[in-house]
Amino acid sequence: MSLEREKLLASPPDGISKDTSRYVIGADIGGTSLRLALANGAGQILCRWSASTAETGDAAKVLQMMRNGVDALLLEASLPSQCLSAIATGAPGVTNADEGIVIATSYLMGWRDVPFRQMLEAEFGIPAFVDNDVNVAAIGELKAGLAMGTTDFVFLAIGTGIGAGIVLNNELHRGGIWTAGEIGYMLVPGTSDAPVERGQPGALESLVGGEGIRQQWRSGWRENSTTLSRDATASQIFDQALRGDPLANSVLERTARALSYAIHNIALVLNSPLFVLGGSIGIHPALGDATRLVLLERGTRAQPRLVSSALGADAQLIGAIFLALETADRELANKAITTAQSTLA
Amino acid sequence: MSLEREKLLASPPDGISKDTSRYVIGADIGGTSLRLALANGAGQILCRWSASTAETGDAAKVLQMMRNGVDALLLEASLPSQCLSAIATGAPGVTNADEGIVIATSYLMGWRDVPFRQMLEAEFGIPAFVDNDVNVAAIGELKAGLAMGTTDFVFLAIGTGIGAGIVLNNELHRGGIWTAGEIGYMLVPGTSDAPVERGQPGALESLVGGEGIRQQWRSGWRENSTTLSRDATASQIFDQALRGDPLANSVLERTARALSYAIHNIALVLNSPLFVLGGSIGIHPALGDATRLVLLERGTRAQPRLVSSALGADAQLIGAIFLALETADRELANKAITTAQSTLA
Repeated sequence: MSLEREKLLASPPDGISKDTSRYVIGADIGGTSLRLALANGAGQILCRWSASTAETGDAAKVLQMMRNGVDALLLEASLPSQCLSAIATGAPGVTNADEGIVIATSYLMGWRDVPFRQMLEAEFGIPAFVDNDVNVAAIGELKAGLAMGTTDFVFLAIGTGIGAGIVLNNELHRGGIWTAGEIGYMLVPGTSDAPVERGQPGALESLVGGEGIRQQWRSGWRENSTTLSRDATASQIFDQALRGDPLANSVLERTARALSYAIHNIALVLNSPLFVLGGSIGIHPALGDATRLVLLERGTRAQPRLVSSALGADAQLIGAIFLALETADRELANKAITTAQSTLA
Repeated sequence: MSLEREKLLASPPDGISKDTSRYVIGADIGGTSLRLALANGAGQILCRWSASTAETGDAAKVLQMMRNGVDALLLEASLPSQCLSAIATGAPGVTNADEGIVIATSYLMGWRDVPFRQMLEAEFGIPAFVDNDVNVAAIGELKAGLAMGTTDFVFLAIGTGIGAGIVLNNELHRGGIWTAGEIGYMLVPGTSDAPVERGQPGALESLVGGEGIRQQWRSGWRENSTTLSRDATASQIFDQALRGDPLANSVLERTARALSYAIHNIALVLNSPLFVLGGSIGIHPALGDATRLVLLERGTRAQPRLVSSALGADAQLIGAIFLALETADRELANKAITTAQSTLA
């Protein structure tokens, strides 16, 4: 577990109300770590807390960890728990955001139909909001990242796998059964088109996701042909490509080609003018540059702009903070209506 | 030119007001033909008119043809021109529907930034509406076809090329520069991934569009290996596949595979539960059946339902009629507001 105090940003993210008397928790539940941030009503992060989830994927255990983290954050900021007005979190899987139910995560955590919003509200006694983590990060990019000021864009998160958060007319497009943007199974030239078992990595993911990149590296790796280990991570492989290593460059090129084809296809469907690359692997500058190059070769009418996230891993926390503030606002409005109705009755 | 009188439908399409005292014109401008329908205020088609555009693609000439057609329809129905309250048309290219400007059609017609709505309003003296033909057909499917009662679906028009009309939350998604759904350039396994010159058939179109299907047929055709001519149309090739011809079946299979991959990709992005196949080639039963088969092999979480249009070529005319009625309603509402304002002043 780690706890850190933040220097306050000079100006709060756009679109967030400036009321600093209330506080919220933004969270990001991942397959390897749980991260929390305590923010004031202006959306400014006061302090952060994180812990490993590698061995504790169970929802009740994650909730207990969140309790510990929130307590640590309140202690660090010398605030009583009553000053918290909402909590919001991203979850690593398909999520019904209306009900706050995590429908399915990858096999690593194994959640199925977990009513996590209800669990958070029972634990903390404040309104909560739960959405898919890529969608939450897209909100972060929209409110405080490079998508600020746009109304239509696509956030592409590349970590172990790949997912898209789609914003149309300033709103997340989540889809009828909440799976919009689950592009790991996309088929492009170069991917296998063999049917994929449910729960297994999709065709695009096998080339563009972190595990797929490592797999490409291992299958091409020969002793004495490169200075980098056979067990290198995707980031190390891309770093090695920047140093001119031929094998690393061929892996980078293949990854960038598949990614650019996916972006091309999504842009054709949606006519989105902007794509923001995020996630631990997506933000690697070598990947952004190589992908832009392949996109430029094509030059279609609706050529999208491709940028690398400036928020990095903070996109999800900032998105969660914004969603928590919105949840708190909604609760206030509901209370005002109830009060007005009982006064009139 | 051909003119025909309709038997009235027993019940008007859903969502259309039942005022039968007004009349509208719905039109479909295509690369090979111009079709018009006169409908009453309940959306019921009274009579139709059509003519060839094969040698008269110029916008001013098309407008003159529409004038002739509308006059013929009014004469046939014994109605004075004053009883027309609006006209709407689909245009075969990227269209700014807000302004009614046809930005670009294929090289066959060669329109560039044609203010066709303005031209229609000047010619007929009634409010007009112009949108991309595939979008207009999608509205037809939503209001009177197999998409009735849904709020999210994708209409796929396959004729010479392929295009998608995307309906999200009951509204067309047209995209920031009006190119959403221009999926002819989509890249899937089996398509070439070489960059495509602007104006040339896209990668997907080269396999799935009518011309692409004929091209596949010609490149595999050998004398005495099939009873069908080397110059067969796409529909004839698919008919031949149903008769068990091996070459025709391999063309059908390749087309269906590419189409199913495109549907798979679009469904991943949008999570649309329903796809409606339309257009002269899209409605061929052999294509629908073969494509459903490939989709079933995959069985992803968000498996969409694929149906063949029951409206066929009428989807565009019915969509145009609905859009004309909506345009007339908007004009009435605007007039009512103006009258109220001048009464108050």
